[in-house]
Amino acid sequence: MKEDGIGPGEIIRRKQDGTLEYQHDELTVEEPLEIRIGDQTVATTMRTPGQDDELAAGFLFSEAIIAVSSDVVSISAADNVATVQLRDGMKPKLNSAQRFGTISSSCGLCGKQSIDAFQLRFPPIKSAAFRVHIATLLGLPEKMSAKQSDFARTGGIHAAGIFSYNGEPLIVREDIGRHNALDKAIGRAFFDSELPLEEHILLVSGRASFEIVQKALAAGIAIIASVSAPSSLAMQFARENNQTLVGFLRPPSFNIYSHVERVVLE
Amino acid sequence: MKEDGIGPGEIIRRKQDGTLEYQHDELTVEEPLEIRIGDQTVATTMRTPGQDDELAAGFLFSEAIIAVSSDVVSISAADNVATVQLRDGMKPKLNSAQRFGTISSSCGLCGKQSIDAFQLRFPPIKSAAFRVHIATLLGLPEKMSAKQSDFARTGGIHAAGIFSYNGEPLIVREDIGRHNALDKAIGRAFFDSELPLEEHILLVSGRASFEIVQKALAAGIAIIASVSAPSSLAMQFARENNQTLVGFLRPPSFNIYSHVERVVLE
Repeated sequence: MKEDGIGPGEIIRRKQDGTLEYQHDELTVEEPLEIRIGDQTVATTMRTPGQDDELAAGFLFSEAIIAVSSDVVSISAADNVATVQLRDGMKPKLNSAQRFGTISSSCGLCGKQSIDAFQLRFPPIKSAAFRVHIATLLGLPEKMSAKQSDFARTGGIHAAGIFSYNGEPLIVREDIGRHNALDKAIGRAFFDSELPLEEHILLVSGRASFEIVQKALAAGIAIIASVSAPSSLAMQFARENNQTLVGFLRPPSFNIYSHVERVVLE
Repeated sequence: MKEDGIGPGEIIRRKQDGTLEYQHDELTVEEPLEIRIGDQTVATTMRTPGQDDELAAGFLFSEAIIAVSSDVVSISAADNVATVQLRDGMKPKLNSAQRFGTISSSCGLCGKQSIDAFQLRFPPIKSAAFRVHIATLLGLPEKMSAKQSDFARTGGIHAAGIFSYNGEPLIVREDIGRHNALDKAIGRAFFDSELPLEEHILLVSGRASFEIVQKALAAGIAIIASVSAPSSLAMQFARENNQTLVGFLRPPSFNIYSHVERVVLE
């Protein structure tokens, strides 16, 4: 052991066998991103740099500020600022200035001036015809892990994956914030004009909060799976909006919290 | 299996042995809390109900809006609204109206209109004289678990524990949001006039983000331990502010990311 503490880029690790060693620190990068429409700041979020244009687009889409890719003229991202130029004459639907001081995609609530204002009221999912076999769902976590980069190395990053109805991974995004990972995935689908994702499955690596199922609804996603627990409000929201919510998806076990009719169990 | 899906209060569970069963849903409750100073909304956060007064106090303290318990005349909480009355003549230090549209304690950033504004600049921890034995740190997760209620049952709740220098659990709070759990713990210490927590240790159940170490600094906490990964910014912040940051605290192993001089390793 050195006498003088921890150097730059170093950490001290005690392994299972009790020995101490210095390691290079490999941590998930966390930096703020300011999202602007023109010169107006609408959100600041702590995120993992990368795909900042997707994050900005996915965030604005799931906040119902933009709807189709032609709404956006350009998104430029540099120096932890993403600047969105909307098409000429477009007035962003900020609902009201009161509602919209500043919003952070890490919580989805900020800037909403009261409790009543935060429910965005996207329409419920319409059809229950789309069905998926439970074996497909059980295969998703492994497929997402295979597409992930940083997660295994640091354990400090969330992932969101959008899969086809038959379990093909289409978009996998990672971020230190769970909502950012989902915003990035939705933003990618937005750029590719794939929204709404009517026959797709969302898998999130962590818990399923209210805001996760709300963003999924914005993207038209009918089936949401999480490897961990949902919240009470997430379950209630999914039940009300005709979304299938699967939790604790840890093969071979799982929980289904809502709209089991979309899942072929046997 | 029933033919008609999932009833109210029910979920479907497939166990490890492959059998399906209906279970009563026991989920972590998630509901919005609006924090007001007088009639002005300053924050809305998704939280687990309970100790709403502590949450409001801890949030306002770690945002540097209140400093001592005499700043607060009363906090009343009902119907998902916590209303704080400040002492007569006290002007809340909102820094500027621009900075402070609405803040969510689940992100700690919202309402900050630009990246420069979000660093609150509490003074760094002063003394390095306070030291703790690694065996004490390694004993904390089990001590916190023993004080927890919902975590084991649902797996969907975060916990924050404040311990004495010798490892006694003083305050343990739980919430679906990691920052809320810490705000509640700090709020309790605020009400008890225990701030700053100069010879205390903070343990958080999840990852250590920038905002966790920043709130810890606000409370004067020199040693922060996490059972999971810190972010790059959390490590940088802890190094700059003379805080000891321990991660992946999973006995017998652990990582130390900053200011190892406070930890007696052998």
